[in-house]
Amino acid sequence: MVDRLTRASELTVEEKASLTSGRSFWETEPVDRVGIPSLYLTDGPHGVRKQAQGGDHLGIGDSVPATCFPPAVALGSSWDAELLERVGAALGEEAKAEGVGVLLGPGINIKRSPLCGRNFEYLSEDPIVSGRLGAALVRGLQSQGVGASLKHFAANNQETDRLRVSADVDERPLREIYLRGFQHVVEQAQPWTVMCSYNRINGVYASEDPWLLTSVLRDEWGFEGLVVSDWGAVNDRVSALVAGLDLEMPSTGGVTDAQLVAAVRDGSLAESVLDTAADRVIDLVEKALAGADADATYDVDGHHALAREVAGRSIVLLKNDGILPLATAAGRSIAVVGEFARTPRYQGAGSSQIVPTRLDNALDELIALAGDATVAFAPGYGLGESAEADAVALTAEAVGIAAAADDVVVFLGLPGEDESEGFDREHLELPAVQTELLEAVIAANPRVTVVLSNGGVVRVSGWADRVPAIVEGWLLGQAGGGAIADVLFGVVNPSGRLAESIPVRIEDTASFLNFPGEKGHVRYGEGLFVGYRDFDARGAAVSFPFGHGLSYTTFAFGAPIATPAADGGIRVTVEVTNTGDRDGREVVQVYVSVPASRVQRPVRELKGFATVAVAAGATETVVVELTASDLAYYDTELGGWSVEGGDYVVEVGASSRDLRGSVTVTLAGDGRTAPLTVDSTLGEWLEHPVGGPILMAALAQSAEAEGMGAMLADPSLRRMAESIPLVRAAAFPGSPVTREQLDQLVAAASA
Amino acid sequence: MVDRLTRASELTVEEKASLTSGRSFWETEPVDRVGIPSLYLTDGPHGVRKQAQGGDHLGIGDSVPATCFPPAVALGSSWDAELLERVGAALGEEAKAEGVGVLLGPGINIKRSPLCGRNFEYLSEDPIVSGRLGAALVRGLQSQGVGASLKHFAANNQETDRLRVSADVDERPLREIYLRGFQHVVEQAQPWTVMCSYNRINGVYASEDPWLLTSVLRDEWGFEGLVVSDWGAVNDRVSALVAGLDLEMPSTGGVTDAQLVAAVRDGSLAESVLDTAADRVIDLVEKALAGADADATYDVDGHHALAREVAGRSIVLLKNDGILPLATAAGRSIAVVGEFARTPRYQGAGSSQIVPTRLDNALDELIALAGDATVAFAPGYGLGESAEADAVALTAEAVGIAAAADDVVVFLGLPGEDESEGFDREHLELPAVQTELLEAVIAANPRVTVVLSNGGVVRVSGWADRVPAIVEGWLLGQAGGGAIADVLFGVVNPSGRLAESIPVRIEDTASFLNFPGEKGHVRYGEGLFVGYRDFDARGAAVSFPFGHGLSYTTFAFGAPIATPAADGGIRVTVEVTNTGDRDGREVVQVYVSVPASRVQRPVRELKGFATVAVAAGATETVVVELTASDLAYYDTELGGWSVEGGDYVVEVGASSRDLRGSVTVTLAGDGRTAPLTVDSTLGEWLEHPVGGPILMAALAQSAEAEGMGAMLADPSLRRMAESIPLVRAAAFPGSPVTREQLDQLVAAASA
Repeated sequence: MVDRLTRASELTVEEKASLTSGRSFWETEPVDRVGIPSLYLTDGPHGVRKQAQGGDHLGIGDSVPATCFPPAVALGSSWDAELLERVGAALGEEAKAEGVGVLLGPGINIKRSPLCGRNFEYLSEDPIVSGRLGAALVRGLQSQGVGASLKHFAANNQETDRLRVSADVDERPLREIYLRGFQHVVEQAQPWTVMCSYNRINGVYASEDPWLLTSVLRDEWGFEGLVVSDWGAVNDRVSALVAGLDLEMPSTGGVTDAQLVAAVRDGSLAESVLDTAADRVIDLVEKALAGADADATYDVDGHHALAREVAGRSIVLLKNDGILPLATAAGRSIAVVGEFARTPRYQGAGSSQIVPTRLDNALDELIALAGDATVAFAPGYGLGESAEADAVALTAEAVGIAAAADDVVVFLGLPGEDESEGFDREHLELPAVQTELLEAVIAANPRVTVVLSNGGVVRVSGWADRVPAIVEGWLLGQAGGGAIADVLFGVVNPSGRLAESIPVRIEDTASFLNFPGEKGHVRYGEGLFVGYRDFDARGAAVSFPFGHGLSYTTFAFGAPIATPAADGGIRVTVEVTNTGDRDGREVVQVYVSVPASRVQRPVRELKGFATVAVAAGATETVVVELTASDLAYYDTELGGWSVEGGDYVVEVGASSRDLRGSVTVTLAGDGRTAPLTVDSTLGEWLEHPVGGPILMAALAQSAEAEGMGAMLADPSLRRMAESIPLVRAAAFPGSPVTREQLDQLVAAASA
Repeated sequence: MVDRLTRASELTVEEKASLTSGRSFWETEPVDRVGIPSLYLTDGPHGVRKQAQGGDHLGIGDSVPATCFPPAVALGSSWDAELLERVGAALGEEAKAEGVGVLLGPGINIKRSPLCGRNFEYLSEDPIVSGRLGAALVRGLQSQGVGASLKHFAANNQETDRLRVSADVDERPLREIYLRGFQHVVEQAQPWTVMCSYNRINGVYASEDPWLLTSVLRDEWGFEGLVVSDWGAVNDRVSALVAGLDLEMPSTGGVTDAQLVAAVRDGSLAESVLDTAADRVIDLVEKALAGADADATYDVDGHHALAREVAGRSIVLLKNDGILPLATAAGRSIAVVGEFARTPRYQGAGSSQIVPTRLDNALDELIALAGDATVAFAPGYGLGESAEADAVALTAEAVGIAAAADDVVVFLGLPGEDESEGFDREHLELPAVQTELLEAVIAANPRVTVVLSNGGVVRVSGWADRVPAIVEGWLLGQAGGGAIADVLFGVVNPSGRLAESIPVRIEDTASFLNFPGEKGHVRYGEGLFVGYRDFDARGAAVSFPFGHGLSYTTFAFGAPIATPAADGGIRVTVEVTNTGDRDGREVVQVYVSVPASRVQRPVRELKGFATVAVAAGATETVVVELTASDLAYYDTELGGWSVEGGDYVVEVGASSRDLRGSVTVTLAGDGRTAPLTVDSTLGEWLEHPVGGPILMAALAQSAEAEGMGAMLADPSLRRMAESIPLVRAAAFPGSPVTREQLDQLVAAASA
């Protein structure tokens, strides 16, 4: 049990100001006088990146070794909350062993564009996936007494101009797409901290937005923790504090602390606001102290093994015409082509870059698992300093071993310098030297499996139809090489699913014309229609759809059953049968549409999912609970969430475009509707169950031959008339209704 | 010469208030005491729609006969300003003959979506086309002493919820796409009146938006006329008057006049504001009196002939595999199929609907021009009350005459009830009964020419590749039947060009996901990328591109010459040779791109065009002047227009996708750039010709080993560092630059 620390009310203004800021790059300011210690925070999210003292100017140089788990792009592809909770717990153990109180993660920003340079740090294009998996990471981490920092709050969906750009986004997509995942994590997992993002939202810096940091985060969602700035995200310290930003990081050498003190002294900042923030820092320090354990260690080997298991669960088998898994019988030969097999690309650059405890490569692991088969290797292309190597000679060598082999595995991917925090990509292309190599190899031996290493989606439409198998390996962390070997040889039956669509071309993506913006603004012009929501609405082709991923076995779905749940949601049950001869995992995906909705809706939206292990030949019953909150849309007229009554079509499938069954369930809804007013149109009045008859009765009493009643009775005029607000119609010459009568109508309709 | 009328300063407050509103549906309030008469306004825009006294509640019932010229959708397709000026003059003659002082038109709103129900009243998806042609109509009309009313100002690009909806549009697209045409017309043609639209723009009613009606319209563009409300567009009369809305129409029976009087009395409205509006009404009445001629008449036959000439120039020959023009030799037989041949669809419904002086149909005109060929007719489908007619029997009859004929002309189009002011379309489809008929006819005789009658674009992608010829007849006014015959028989060599793209599917259009909005808002999420600007940016297929249109002859383009003009624009010269054996007209289209632009740009934008008549075998030299204003983009950072320096690629062609030549011209530009500030990023500083060296010199003097200079020298950190604003970088621990030094840097960089 840790002693209670001194509260803010007993500190000086200077002490409180200092408490709410950094002492260094990674530590909060202590108050030695009363024994409040520093708190140590480090970068995550897929490893503990604890820097040696000092650090560099941006805080992204070397750090102490830690397990490099698969980055979020891979974790998201597992669609497995239980698995991510285990990763979170392992991260917590490592943080505790390093004396770290808060690990800066998870990052759950929506992948609005495949070009975002930091997509490898994010989970999905979908908020339900991001929210469920983000909450699991937080639960796991915090189960070890180490705090999470849910980031980057909010609408930080690009790197270009990230310290200034305003994400100009309408409230409905902001709520339903960009905030929904954060809401879920806050409500379900209560992260110790939330990290505000660098950018502005609709013109206001996230770091000083009281609507975001207080009204939404605390008042609506019930957040109980502390809000910390992204490193350097504070624009104006006083405004930020008032808005709800409790802790500024890193140190500004006391400059902004002095601004707080001055503001309290001159009365422009209420001391109580500073007290609240300081108390939140003290609360956080207390929690970290309670979780701390000076003797803590972690199982380096065990974590490496976990990293391999997780990587294996994150790989997505995009395509397999039957050549996978690779045979290991005597006499079989496998050609491994591509420098990435030997020099793995396993994480992205920037603040999340881990110094791993060890590092496996796929080539060694393939050799280890090849059994009686032989493995030959040719790099095919150079990377880094060798990127300028002789392509002709490298290709010739690769073609030579490919032609001589039974099977060819070609490793392709994005060079490390292409993907980093801090800038966005400008295209989705693999390096030409790699695709040209692939063409040469295909010509020599068509039995090609492509293994991809990439943090952001790459375009595959130039060649995907000409190779029999594609393994999307993303960035898989330090044990990814073994996981790739596990999948290629069938030691692991792949079960990953795409948490983001793979478009045919970047020009096909919804944000294409609005990314990354200019002059300090980026317009989220596509609204709700991000990722599959856009492709489905436009009926557009994709290379591989959201939710897609193959297995070495096959699954059959029973007819789904959907029933209204007590909370206003829907309970969905479906039987899944493994119809093949290998044990495997299916991800049951539940999509919902509301065909007669009163608002615009995507064709279908993921509302729930579950992973299930099914033994060969066995059947499992899967239950997915969709809560009323999951089903709600944000109604800008009501200023809140609403579950409308009516028919909900529940589709259950293995991907967003592999739907296996559908069932319709009728919900009562919450009954929330906007009231009729004088600004409601004649059409809105007429379709209203109460207002319609009242208006028609009033019109019937009018003596005006050419009045509204007659107009509405004329089919050629009715549609035009229906769009007229009652108050405007009443103002026209010869109107049968006076303004006073209008108010009586409104009163009657609301009675 | 008309006597000067009494000025507002000599009127009572009540008189001034009444002057700025209607007496009836179509007349302004007179002030009999001082002899200020009423002004009569009527609907346009493609005819004089003068209603009998009384009128109906919406003012859209019967009117006195007038020449129904081709609606704007057809006029726009002529791309011919000289022609439209003649139409304007003819409209002015008719208005004068009817005692009308102001004709409510032209309508030049941008066709943002092909679904907009009123697109038939608008000219183009492009602001240069809309602006040039709109100005020509105004010039022609006002040449007769009759005022134009440029409408609907502004961003009124849909009918759905038009009286309330807010067009939420960012300033750059608002300026460059939606206002640009209005700006051109105001600056070049000074319409007597501008009509404000019903809708809101970014939340503010157009009728009460001081930015729109005063800052932009008057202060920036120099508008000297009067702003009139669309009928019933006033939300709050006092706010509207203050914003710059001079005249409210129609009458509100004195209700809102009394509001003005009360506001003046209680001091909330300055009487000078009312004086200004009243004086503008008086000015307008004076102009109308000066133009009035109680003895005026017009040449009904001459105007009908003009309507036919204009219609012929508006028809767009979309496709012709050689079967057009139709042969008229003895022994040839022509089957005419489709009720529209007999019952023309020649205008849209709503406030623009004219009672024509006469009405030609294509069937009679085809028979008249068929020479020695024989013409058979079958209706094929029913319209209106006959729409439920027996499709099987009608199809059999049509197939019968088609099979027996040498050539078949099939008239297809949208039923009248599909297109009207007041509501938008929900799809682009022709009625299934028509496309099914077409399939049956094609099967019977593949020598099919389709003639379309439609106010908004229809989808042709289901059948266009299977018919040898397509004639886009739009809505062609009362003499359109003769014009269609003229084109089919080659009496007129078609020269119309698409002023709007014909998409493959509605799902492919840029506004698809944001049209028509909901809950009172429509987000113009596609920004600048309307019509061809979107299709070209995405590299998307279209059925027929913007600017497209065939001729019965062929034209060759010489190499274009482009030289900087004295005003900062570009003078483009190109020789056009008629390489066929018929006289014809070409529309020379000039598109411009700025490949190294500092802002996002469409792939190419139309910046100028010219129509030219070229005799068979002859060559004409065409000069197109692009002004600096045409070339400018709206810079949101500068808050104004800017012509940047650099290379401009000038492409000259016969359509947006039939570019015949390209030439690059380097412009000095206006030199306007945003100054460096402390919020400018390191990257912006470094690329600045003055600021870059200053910053590097300051960094070089720093003793900090790990300072910004070192960071910028590290290739792996440089891109991340470049996005950091100087003021943020200076706040990091160990920064080599203090805030004071920053201000010195900024001062030095601007020196």
